[in-house]
Amino acid sequence: MAGLGLDHVRVFHLWPLLQPNRTLVRATAVDQVVQLVDLAAEFDLDVLVDGVQGHLSSFDFYPEWTRSWHHRNVFTDPDAIEAQATLLRTLGRALAGRPNVLGLQLGNELNNLVEHNPVTTDQVDHYLDTLLAAARDGLGEGGGLVTHSAYDAAWYGDDHPFTPEASARKGDLTTVHPWVFSGDCARRYGPRSPQVLHLAEYGVELANAYATAPGRPVWVQETGAPEPHIPAADAPEFARATLRNAAGCADVWGVTWWCSHDVDRALADYPELEYTLGLFDSAGRPKPIAEALAGTVADLRADPRPAPARETALVLDCTPSTRSVSGPGGSFFETWMRLRTEGARPAVVLARHAEDEDHLTARGIKEVLRPE
Amino acid sequence: MAGLGLDHVRVFHLWPLLQPNRTLVRATAVDQVVQLVDLAAEFDLDVLVDGVQGHLSSFDFYPEWTRSWHHRNVFTDPDAIEAQATLLRTLGRALAGRPNVLGLQLGNELNNLVEHNPVTTDQVDHYLDTLLAAARDGLGEGGGLVTHSAYDAAWYGDDHPFTPEASARKGDLTTVHPWVFSGDCARRYGPRSPQVLHLAEYGVELANAYATAPGRPVWVQETGAPEPHIPAADAPEFARATLRNAAGCADVWGVTWWCSHDVDRALADYPELEYTLGLFDSAGRPKPIAEALAGTVADLRADPRPAPARETALVLDCTPSTRSVSGPGGSFFETWMRLRTEGARPAVVLARHAEDEDHLTARGIKEVLRPE
Repeated sequence: MAGLGLDHVRVFHLWPLLQPNRTLVRATAVDQVVQLVDLAAEFDLDVLVDGVQGHLSSFDFYPEWTRSWHHRNVFTDPDAIEAQATLLRTLGRALAGRPNVLGLQLGNELNNLVEHNPVTTDQVDHYLDTLLAAARDGLGEGGGLVTHSAYDAAWYGDDHPFTPEASARKGDLTTVHPWVFSGDCARRYGPRSPQVLHLAEYGVELANAYATAPGRPVWVQETGAPEPHIPAADAPEFARATLRNAAGCADVWGVTWWCSHDVDRALADYPELEYTLGLFDSAGRPKPIAEALAGTVADLRADPRPAPARETALVLDCTPSTRSVSGPGGSFFETWMRLRTEGARPAVVLARHAEDEDHLTARGIKEVLRPE
Repeated sequence: MAGLGLDHVRVFHLWPLLQPNRTLVRATAVDQVVQLVDLAAEFDLDVLVDGVQGHLSSFDFYPEWTRSWHHRNVFTDPDAIEAQATLLRTLGRALAGRPNVLGLQLGNELNNLVEHNPVTTDQVDHYLDTLLAAARDGLGEGGGLVTHSAYDAAWYGDDHPFTPEASARKGDLTTVHPWVFSGDCARRYGPRSPQVLHLAEYGVELANAYATAPGRPVWVQETGAPEPHIPAADAPEFARATLRNAAGCADVWGVTWWCSHDVDRALADYPELEYTLGLFDSAGRPKPIAEALAGTVADLRADPRPAPARETALVLDCTPSTRSVSGPGGSFFETWMRLRTEGARPAVVLARHAEDEDHLTARGIKEVLRPE
């Protein structure tokens, strides 16, 4: 991975192994996470640790004290929240002071757990605030990023309890996971379509619209080329375009490619797309997409000029119940993509800020367009 | 444990650690089970390994490939059954040839999983037959016992899909787990009542009734003194009486006390009774019940005469839907206990065998009593 020019990894431990009992965080397991961070340092790789893990490649990893006869809602049960806060505080303390720790994220796409843990937006906000504070407490001020992450339903899912506001305002930066299968983007527009090649860029601009702090960084924390959505032959160009287009956003923090290695077909029950998502095959051989990504990383590093601010913004007028207009198939999404294809570089501004001069000025926006 | 005169242990690994993916049995985890068996051998302790684990002290341990987005019924899904057969075969092969391996049990009280994995009696029978064959295949002929186990619903639960017949006929011997909280036995009759002190003995005699092979051994595989059902002050006498009375059954194979150590109160969410079930406290100090048990073991070993056959049998007339008559609070149970208290030593015979001379002769039964 380091040989491709990549500079960081995300690592996911399994929650039940870290905290098998509500009141026990296993010191041995925490030590193993720290060891992994130190091994990454030997290769000059930085590390983001996902704390409450949670959901991974279609499998949910909950400890037994939240399930079956002991069912507790992981988002709303006060004791379950306290236990997760303890886990994050413990991990933060163990990781603090290691220079290659990028930060501590609450968990990978925690909103995948909503289906089995019903929760309201207010409850999600309380959950995120509590756990972000615990992670910060553990890591210490200046000890690295404290973040959370959600799958695309937060941005595009009508009435989904995780909101764009929570993503764009809580934690030290905004993370987006703009997957080409969300809203059937690649199936709908085709794997070589502008909608697909500009999807990560769009994700950054959409996230910017919901931020209250001007210039808040946005991390394209997951993007990848899942077959059959992106056929293998199209994957290298998809990787190049995704990286270049995301790099054209003023506030992009970075991009993390999902993922390093194909899942071995000897392992059963993964969704088909997980078997082909790697930059390397399951035997560790780099695939053509790895070379494409490495080349683009090198090109971008050779010309590190920051992208200029976007002067034209498209107005997004939606509520939590109509946010799907901003997802693939939605009218706002399609208008933005049409403008982009025609050569414009549109930002996104929320309707409530469309006439707010302070907001527009702070973001360098000089022209506001309303979709017909 | 060995110092108390105990000669064996049951060990439960956690299924998700042994088989985290449907098609992967972790060699490292299997090696750790074998290591534990070898450590027990250093103390002259034999070991029964529970293979698909399963349920333990109120917590269910299922791997993620059976749950949530990947839900599979562990009893009926053909791929899930095949995976469990592979696990048992693999464990059996790893354990084969070690002289202190008592055997391989399918799992601890698998019927605790019924609540979340609905299943019919025919499906249970197919499941048990398939897995017992796999365990035998792994362990090899003569390589130790192959057994299964169920909690008391198999014996007393009307319409429960695990049946007394499956317990008494499948596997190399019958296991019973006659707990004093089942059917509220200790609450109903009192902790010093004959119903409580003869409960394990009764469990053996009831199991004998369902056997088709005369003299089939019955293992009192779980009994213990849970507070508040058995107050600590009554626990030593409960242990002495339980052991002595069970030893008075002709076909008893042995008794396993549940359990070695109290659960540490630093661990949350266990049912109250689990914190006080140990022979040792959570710091490893023997409790009065440990001395009582050790003394009784020594007494029984000093006088190893086998118990004589029981010549009088009480007729049990019930169906799978009325088997609760044979549990605490049931008319059959109470009649048997009354006879026992009056000094008789009754066996149990099923109504369909009550006039079957061959059956009665094979068991040494000379007199048949019918409850009024």
